[in-house]
Amino acid sequence: MRPIRLGMVGGGQGAFIGGVHRIAARMDGMFTLVAGALSSDPERARASGEDLGLAPERTYMTWDGMARAEATRPDGIEAVAIVTPNHLHAGPAVAFLERGIHVICDKPLAATAEQAAAIAAAARASGAMFFLTHNYPGTPMVREARAMVAAGALGALRLVEVEYVQDWLARPVSNKQADWRTDPARSGAGALGDIGTHAWNLARFVSGLAPEALAAEVSTLVPGRRVDDNVSAHLRFAGGARGRLWASQVAVGHENGLRLRLAGSDGGLDWSQEDPNRLWFTPIGEPRRLLTRGGAGTGPAAQGRVPAGHPEGYLEAFATIYADIARAIRTGDRAACPVAGIEDGLEGMRFIAACLASSAAGGAWVAMH
Amino acid sequence: MRPIRLGMVGGGQGAFIGGVHRIAARMDGMFTLVAGALSSDPERARASGEDLGLAPERTYMTWDGMARAEATRPDGIEAVAIVTPNHLHAGPAVAFLERGIHVICDKPLAATAEQAAAIAAAARASGAMFFLTHNYPGTPMVREARAMVAAGALGALRLVEVEYVQDWLARPVSNKQADWRTDPARSGAGALGDIGTHAWNLARFVSGLAPEALAAEVSTLVPGRRVDDNVSAHLRFAGGARGRLWASQVAVGHENGLRLRLAGSDGGLDWSQEDPNRLWFTPIGEPRRLLTRGGAGTGPAAQGRVPAGHPEGYLEAFATIYADIARAIRTGDRAACPVAGIEDGLEGMRFIAACLASSAAGGAWVAMH
Amino acid sequence: MRPIRLGMVGGGQGAFIGGVHRIAARMDGMFTLVAGALSSDPERARASGEDLGLAPERTYMTWDGMARAEATRPDGIEAVAIVTPNHLHAGPAVAFLERGIHVICDKPLAATAEQAAAIAAAARASGAMFFLTHNYPGTPMVREARAMVAAGALGALRLVEVEYVQDWLARPVSNKQADWRTDPARSGAGALGDIGTHAWNLARFVSGLAPEALAAEVSTLVPGRRVDDNVSAHLRFAGGARGRLWASQVAVGHENGLRLRLAGSDGGLDWSQEDPNRLWFTPIGEPRRLLTRGGAGTGPAAQGRVPAGHPEGYLEAFATIYADIARAIRTGDRAACPVAGIEDGLEGMRFIAACLASSAAGGAWVAMH
Amino acid sequence: MRPIRLGMVGGGQGAFIGGVHRIAARMDGMFTLVAGALSSDPERARASGEDLGLAPERTYMTWDGMARAEATRPDGIEAVAIVTPNHLHAGPAVAFLERGIHVICDKPLAATAEQAAAIAAAARASGAMFFLTHNYPGTPMVREARAMVAAGALGALRLVEVEYVQDWLARPVSNKQADWRTDPARSGAGALGDIGTHAWNLARFVSGLAPEALAAEVSTLVPGRRVDDNVSAHLRFAGGARGRLWASQVAVGHENGLRLRLAGSDGGLDWSQEDPNRLWFTPIGEPRRLLTRGGAGTGPAAQGRVPAGHPEGYLEAFATIYADIARAIRTGDRAACPVAGIEDGLEGMRFIAACLASSAAGGAWVAMH
Repeated sequence: MRPIRLGMVGGGQGAFIGGVHRIAARMDGMFTLVAGALSSDPERARASGEDLGLAPERTYMTWDGMARAEATRPDGIEAVAIVTPNHLHAGPAVAFLERGIHVICDKPLAATAEQAAAIAAAARASGAMFFLTHNYPGTPMVREARAMVAAGALGALRLVEVEYVQDWLARPVSNKQADWRTDPARSGAGALGDIGTHAWNLARFVSGLAPEALAAEVSTLVPGRRVDDNVSAHLRFAGGARGRLWASQVAVGHENGLRLRLAGSDGGLDWSQEDPNRLWFTPIGEPRRLLTRGGAGTGPAAQGRVPAGHPEGYLEAFATIYADIARAIRTGDRAACPVAGIEDGLEGMRFIAACLASSAAGGAWVAMH
Repeated sequence: MRPIRLGMVGGGQGAFIGGVHRIAARMDGMFTLVAGALSSDPERARASGEDLGLAPERTYMTWDGMARAEATRPDGIEAVAIVTPNHLHAGPAVAFLERGIHVICDKPLAATAEQAAAIAAAARASGAMFFLTHNYPGTPMVREARAMVAAGALGALRLVEVEYVQDWLARPVSNKQADWRTDPARSGAGALGDIGTHAWNLARFVSGLAPEALAAEVSTLVPGRRVDDNVSAHLRFAGGARGRLWASQVAVGHENGLRLRLAGSDGGLDWSQEDPNRLWFTPIGEPRRLLTRGGAGTGPAAQGRVPAGHPEGYLEAFATIYADIARAIRTGDRAACPVAGIEDGLEGMRFIAACLASSAAGGAWVAMH
Repeated sequence: MRPIRLGMVGGGQGAFIGGVHRIAARMDGMFTLVAGALSSDPERARASGEDLGLAPERTYMTWDGMARAEATRPDGIEAVAIVTPNHLHAGPAVAFLERGIHVICDKPLAATAEQAAAIAAAARASGAMFFLTHNYPGTPMVREARAMVAAGALGALRLVEVEYVQDWLARPVSNKQADWRTDPARSGAGALGDIGTHAWNLARFVSGLAPEALAAEVSTLVPGRRVDDNVSAHLRFAGGARGRLWASQVAVGHENGLRLRLAGSDGGLDWSQEDPNRLWFTPIGEPRRLLTRGGAGTGPAAQGRVPAGHPEGYLEAFATIYADIARAIRTGDRAACPVAGIEDGLEGMRFIAACLASSAAGGAWVAMH
Repeated sequence: MRPIRLGMVGGGQGAFIGGVHRIAARMDGMFTLVAGALSSDPERARASGEDLGLAPERTYMTWDGMARAEATRPDGIEAVAIVTPNHLHAGPAVAFLERGIHVICDKPLAATAEQAAAIAAAARASGAMFFLTHNYPGTPMVREARAMVAAGALGALRLVEVEYVQDWLARPVSNKQADWRTDPARSGAGALGDIGTHAWNLARFVSGLAPEALAAEVSTLVPGRRVDDNVSAHLRFAGGARGRLWASQVAVGHENGLRLRLAGSDGGLDWSQEDPNRLWFTPIGEPRRLLTRGGAGTGPAAQGRVPAGHPEGYLEAFATIYADIARAIRTGDRAACPVAGIEDGLEGMRFIAACLASSAAGGAWVAMH
């Protein structure tokens, strides 16, 4: 498969989610980033493009200019990732969709219903595809959970309990990430939009249940804050299932506690994103089973990039080793590089030999130096 | 930083660790894979090269040919990753080192002491660098642990307890991964070489203690197996610390249980690779503290690619979303793609609006459809 | 302190909570059970009294008769434990309170508001004391949590999240325990009364917050059931704190999941009754700390009957050993008793000696038989 | 069953294990403590006897005097619990056994081989029974584990991994508990005797394997200590199973970490005493299952005094409530007693009513005061 030519709107220096999108696009080798309108600040836009190795002529100052230029290049981008604050999704989304360029948009869709409607109209009219990056459904055990529900492993669903609780806004905070999220004009809503929609999406993705009605309590618990920071909703689903959704940014003791519990007539499931490789499954009347990514008793949806028992951080640790190596090669400074070298390798061989020698000698102590 | 031109020896279709090296090399955009001698089977070598988008003239049939050809190209590889079984490390390692090409070699160093010595001689003579990919030291919380030990957080070290226990060889197994690992000629040792060296390296990396002597019991517990599958060693370190290393492939109930515990005069640490984002720290006489990657109370070594609370699988879930998108774009089949789209985005907006409306109406139930 | 003479109403053969009350009364040697009206069935009342070693003349057929007789005996009971189904609390409670006998009543107070009012009137008029056995506040770490909240460790409370979720009624069940609990006439309410009141009491006990209002969804999720089996309520407390309470008997995957989370301006707490010896405490901006019963960093409220690290099951295991011994002594059958004996003791001594001998001989293997 | 008349040697004021034995003896109502030689200090012996409500004439100053006197009383003790330091077991054990009184002796058997031999001779010669109180085999999930092993659930055993690790002696400590345990004359051995024998006993009890040989490393890691504080032994069992035992009192981060892991050809088990109600069971090739005391999928051995989901601390919390009540009754101070009363009961009823009212009113907020 030929890699897809990708552009990016937002994601300049200091941004968080833009970098995440870039790593994600790179990991499986299926995209090549070739263009960007990375910041509304021209200086930052230019510097950010240089950091990413973009050609100067494809480092744009505005998404508008980028949409026009890329749409006419023979090697123009095929897809664009929009990673700006919520109130700045609609403009670029419409511009690229109208030009037949696929849009990959960060969630939530927009800051207002009007913006959302504009995107929807463009998406429906366009021949290009629209993707909203709710990322948690990309987790193998979430997909396994959905597959199990769909296959009837829980019987008729009765309960949907989802919570997404954090504490990073438990104190008044001011930084790039916090500022736009707590500004009603830029975010539209607080915890509700930022993480409530993730929780909602996860519950819907896994359960497959159609929502009927909700009853909610939306609160602002940190004095002086201008958006909500704690939301709870009772949920009713088609078919009679009941549920709850809790989103909080002031729940001290929780870093990023997204958890989904489902119960039905025949079984229950429990998944937490802070422990993403595991999924608890309880067939009614039987002991709880701990399913693991790619582990015993799981199906194709639960497979990841590495075998069972290697948590997904395994790949990142490996990538860190590679990044260290790259830096050593480019700087020539081997000594500063923490990656194991030939002496470590020889010591490993001595360790093996010493174990074999000791064991052969009836467990006698064998010197190691 | 300009990406480094990378070659690979081994890692053809059906291999495990080769794919891991490629994802790791790609994740941070610091390497470009441009050449490979991917299999000793010519047909598989060719097909594997095509899968990876290598130029046909840089898809080599032998590592020997690759070393000679790449060393003379102006755009030849700067580094090579060797991901063959243990007994096939020495040949390519020496060949590339002699030509001044940096070597990234999978662990353990070799299958025999002779092979290891050959690599060491070449490494010492070469102007190029040699790296052994013990990956666990790439984990942020492992680096944090090392930094804490070095800073004296544990006082004088007394205990080093490391275990790496698996169960995938608890039954006689035959497949590509198991076959060479259980063949003495190709692996050199069983659990001892495959995972014992990882445990050893981890203990050394974090503790910084110099080994003095060991007393071991090396066993083969599955009848008919020709290599060890369970090893335990008592360890003595310089300065009087005591320890134990356990490596097992027959410990039923453990998938990939690498765990390190250290205790000193002033504190203790506990880390498990199946839960890599967490590190338990106990200052003596105080409650245990749960440190998390990038979380409160951690230093620069503990930082990863994403903020605290997002386990490292977060990036992989995101990458899976991107891979799904790429497939949808290339195949044109949006319906088969599980990534959220415009309707999900609109529903998320309706969810936000319904919560706000219900809360404003004193918690009244609000219809969702 | 002289033990208190105790009577019991309910708790005959086949009952659950009566046996719990008796063990609890016995554990610290502060009560002596001397009288009982143990069942409304005369035959069972008589047999149950005999099992418990009660004098025949103090084994009553009715609580009414017991109240009258015991009130006039010079050695009459000083307190009575009422462990009948909810709708049978009021009668005996009033009868004993009117006679100046202290009442220890199982929760919830009653099945109807009228019954509750009757008990309240009698309690207020009586010189005797009235106790409601919400047992979870007896847990050391719950008391520690309350003490921490009271001492301001969490700052101003903002969030109270309590859940009590079980799955034992996820299927239609019929047995002595289930039958009265699912009969509206005998229980008054289902999950709401049986476990919702426990959750409520726990939240109130620890937080100390005064309730202002609630908004609830009370559901029956198992078809054909006549009482509620799933309840969720949004809570508002004086001072602005928000909360939620969830009680469910159909949450498959949960045995007895009572959990309380509190968050304030300065910290958070998290306690689960299935892991009662532990309490998570997060001072805002610091790593989570795992407090343990009697462990480092805890105060007097956290002390239990045994030192830190011995979970409370420690005492019960010890008691089981004693019960086994008692049976061996009474039956004379030592062989059937699993408690260690002299040979085990000698083997333990040989184990010690062998370790010392091996270590002294440089870790040589020492035979054990 | 008529309660057994029990005496106690040791266990006076300030002792730990004596109190544990008394609670254990009392819990199921099968013993009555009627005599004691509670301390070698006459004043403390007298005061301790008074605390326990012993008759003055059965509060003895020496175990010797107690043995002689009780053996001739018609209502003399039937059994004696010996809870003195290790070096003081043999004297009373022999004295009571010779008089036909059953002996319940704390572990380890003795401080020296000579003392052990003396007890063994008396036990074999006596018509009375001898019990050694290794308490962990009294835990339901330990008994379940043994039953599973015996029933073949693990197939042929291959691995026995047991550890008992603490940190309370990681610093030089001086108190009543620490002093005799770190005095070679009184304890015989350090970690080895105090907790190593517990670990040994547990491994033997559950596995049923006969030991063949061991190779050990016995260390003293705290400078100046006169007994061992860290022990590791490699173990060989009949039939070829391999194992390891680790006992440490200096493993900072562990309170009372007794853990047993077993693996065989068909499955694995994992139990930790700090989480005693749970037992992990992995049938080979299947997901891990979390068995709970009395829970789904367990047999008769796993049953405890309370239903599944109520950890064993449940009973102690209940007993604490009762103890609080007893104090309130004896002191007359109801206000100081934290046990719920009539107002709490009424509030619980209001909570139930408010939930029902709110739910009936479509989830409207209902005031609670």
